[in-house]
Amino acid sequence: MRTKLAGKIEAGEKISIAHGGGGEMMHRLIEGHILPRLGNRFLNALNDSAIFEPTNKRIAFTTDAFVVQPLEFPGGDIGRLAMCGTINDLAVMGATPTALSLALVVEEGLPLSVLDRILDSIAETAATANVVVATGDTKVIERRSGDGLMITTAGIGHLRDGVNMDLGRVNAGDVVIVSGRIAEHGLAVLSVREGLSFETQIVSDAAPLNDLVATILDSGADVKFMRDPTRGGLAGVLADAADVSNLSIEVREDSIPVSSAVRHTAEVFGLDPLTVANEGKLVAICSAKDADRVLNACRAHPLGKHAALIGHFVDEQPQLVELITLAGGRRVIQRPYGEELPRIC
Amino acid sequence: MRTKLAGKIEAGEKISIAHGGGGEMMHRLIEGHILPRLGNRFLNALNDSAIFEPTNKRIAFTTDAFVVQPLEFPGGDIGRLAMCGTINDLAVMGATPTALSLALVVEEGLPLSVLDRILDSIAETAATANVVVATGDTKVIERRSGDGLMITTAGIGHLRDGVNMDLGRVNAGDVVIVSGRIAEHGLAVLSVREGLSFETQIVSDAAPLNDLVATILDSGADVKFMRDPTRGGLAGVLADAADVSNLSIEVREDSIPVSSAVRHTAEVFGLDPLTVANEGKLVAICSAKDADRVLNACRAHPLGKHAALIGHFVDEQPQLVELITLAGGRRVIQRPYGEELPRIC
Repeated sequence: MRTKLAGKIEAGEKISIAHGGGGEMMHRLIEGHILPRLGNRFLNALNDSAIFEPTNKRIAFTTDAFVVQPLEFPGGDIGRLAMCGTINDLAVMGATPTALSLALVVEEGLPLSVLDRILDSIAETAATANVVVATGDTKVIERRSGDGLMITTAGIGHLRDGVNMDLGRVNAGDVVIVSGRIAEHGLAVLSVREGLSFETQIVSDAAPLNDLVATILDSGADVKFMRDPTRGGLAGVLADAADVSNLSIEVREDSIPVSSAVRHTAEVFGLDPLTVANEGKLVAICSAKDADRVLNACRAHPLGKHAALIGHFVDEQPQLVELITLAGGRRVIQRPYGEELPRIC
Repeated sequence: MRTKLAGKIEAGEKISIAHGGGGEMMHRLIEGHILPRLGNRFLNALNDSAIFEPTNKRIAFTTDAFVVQPLEFPGGDIGRLAMCGTINDLAVMGATPTALSLALVVEEGLPLSVLDRILDSIAETAATANVVVATGDTKVIERRSGDGLMITTAGIGHLRDGVNMDLGRVNAGDVVIVSGRIAEHGLAVLSVREGLSFETQIVSDAAPLNDLVATILDSGADVKFMRDPTRGGLAGVLADAADVSNLSIEVREDSIPVSSAVRHTAEVFGLDPLTVANEGKLVAICSAKDADRVLNACRAHPLGKHAALIGHFVDEQPQLVELITLAGGRRVIQRPYGEELPRIC
């Protein structure tokens, strides 16, 4: 019976509350729009869970909610962002992402064409990163502004053998490497929101980092910690690293990769690039002797061309993150207090 | 530094956008309100992923988004619902739930006291079901009505040995068992929304079913399929089962467990209890010879006291779900077309 009634929703149609009810309308949405893009042997079964056989003893598990506005921005959209966010959270733990879940909360009135583009983007990101969307859920909520979509992804990955990401292993002298130019995602979204995207031409860096992480770990470097500097930016990751390692960090401002467009735009908005979200960068901590391995691995990869060693750990109390500024002065880097850029991811 | 600045948010305070920014305000929310309730060795690490060692070769993976309004209702709240939904999706696949993820999208203006109560409820449900919230994420969105909270949970579980939930194994003569009285969750939420909750006294059945499922499977019955009849209700599950098995199902209306309060309230709202959501019931399919094992296992469990055999599969085409009514007539049961009750889960 399902096949008789199912079919694509009409072109130009908008999402209605009825598409979320678990009835025939929802079947049409799933079978006409979601499965053709994301279908695979797990998802096609339309069971409540997907079944896996882990290939490694240890698995990693993570989740992220995405509420970015607007839904589409230079360099990406909420779908790409949601996929990359969870893939990257697994990757920086040293896990190979294998399966993602995808929960959509769609606002009534969302044009179906927008949803279709975002589903296409999710499918493309999944293919690029070689991960599968294994299970999902869709809810529709009543109309507000009519352009709403929130996505929560969760993911499981298999931990690589020998990986031990633990800030407790960090010592004075260890170095901090960032894989590329910072603050591009946050400023790309903010620019389009403020009508400045054409002028600034900043593009979100949203990208799946699992292949870059594999390249780094394959280099043989003993990476002690990795994190993707999303909300809170580079400043947030460094503050956390100092807190947990119980050491201070000295960072040289002139070594931090920032494009001139980002530097200029951040100034216009009165923002510090250090606290702006990235969605395709990672921070790696390793001993000084492994620094070249990590840097060379990054620079050999398309997503790590601008990798740089930006600082090192020092045994000074109280633990602080200190920036040696371009002018030669010193200032303390703190994680931002509240939300500088709402709905950036 | 974090410990110096962290602390509980003031009593009476409301959630602000700043609580979602990945900065100090967010640390206060997490360390003052979330970790004290849900903390465990996975979550306390505040890493981006949790690490597990599966005890079985096969793992199940699922997700669900919850947008119920109001957030609190007779018999439960959105937190209990979100935990039970994912626990139950794993359980009906024959998996023992081990770890859940919890993603909160909080609307600015939500009273912190409401969030705290819902977190308490999540913690209590996790303890009852013996599962751990292993990883999470929190986002804050701008104020709308000021009472908003959406929760997406995902979960992983270890598949029990010997379990093979597959509608392809179902044959004519196999029976359909429902574990208790239907339609209580949907009508409880609707009643409170319509200001009728005092009159009807219907309470949501939201409950974690993993222990009931374990009892059923421990009975030795070869359960061929299980599903929790949430959105779309019992009608939705039966329609799916007929579709996929390519068989028809005959159901006797007089055998379906429904309380008189539910029957009366459904009539008032013009709803068919068969299409109303449940959040603590399951449908099990097995051969006729295993029916007593399943029924006895259910009835020995607090969540299965009213279990009943409601119908059986017949080899008739086209495949339909037919209800033999109280009056002795026949009508076709269909999954609801659209959304009869928006934001019921």
